[in-house]
Amino acid sequence: MESKQILKGTIWLEIDDEKVLSQVHVELLERVHKSGYIRQGALQMRMSYKHAWDLIHHMNDHHKLPIVISQRGGKGGGCAIVTAHGIRLVGQFHLLKIKFQDFLDLNIIDVNC
Amino acid sequence: MESKQILKGTIWLEIDDEKVLSQVHVELLERVHKSGYIRQGALQMRMSYKHAWDLIHHMNDHHKLPIVISQRGGKGGGCAIVTAHGIRLVGQFHLLKIKFQDFLDLNIIDVNC
Repeated sequence: MESKQILKGTIWLEIDDEKVLSQVHVELLERVHKSGYIRQGALQMRMSYKHAWDLIHHMNDHHKLPIVISQRGGKGGGCAIVTAHGIRLVGQFHLLKIKFQDFLDLNIIDVNC
Repeated sequence: MESKQILKGTIWLEIDDEKVLSQVHVELLERVHKSGYIRQGALQMRMSYKHAWDLIHHMNDHHKLPIVISQRGGKGGGCAIVTAHGIRLVGQFHLLKIKFQDFLDLNIIDVNC
């Protein structure tokens, strides 16, 4: 059977040497956007509420415009809104991932020559 | 002060869903090639001899042509030779990394618009 070679990779954005946009950030933003709650997003991604909260506030701190507006409160955690800017960033990241996948598909190393 | 945005990433090659060529593999091959010993390469990279041995044998198992020819032996471990094919793969990976860096430089996300 012919073995299957595939080039893989990951990309992320850093601001001032801090990772502020990656697949994990984007997935979290999408889940928060859908559910309206950071806690729901965290739960769906099997991460702690604290970790999700930290990721989001870290993003907010390193972007000039807010990405998520949230209210801390109550037992279930306050609600959260992903801003239009946040949604735009998610879209940009997805477009970039498509271009990156094209790059990976076009640049396979042939290990048998 | 203007904050510095940078797109970063890593790439690796998989064969039959197994990671067989990455930055770690390439660095190990280069160090084994220079020193002539898997143990030396492992030591320089602060990994265990067993881990280095496993990485190299895993590479050999998943490529049609051998990458490293080694002799197991003695207290210090036997000597090892990176084959011409292995050296070619290292070169291909470096070329790919240059193209990948070009991709990253050209595709920065502007987080402030």
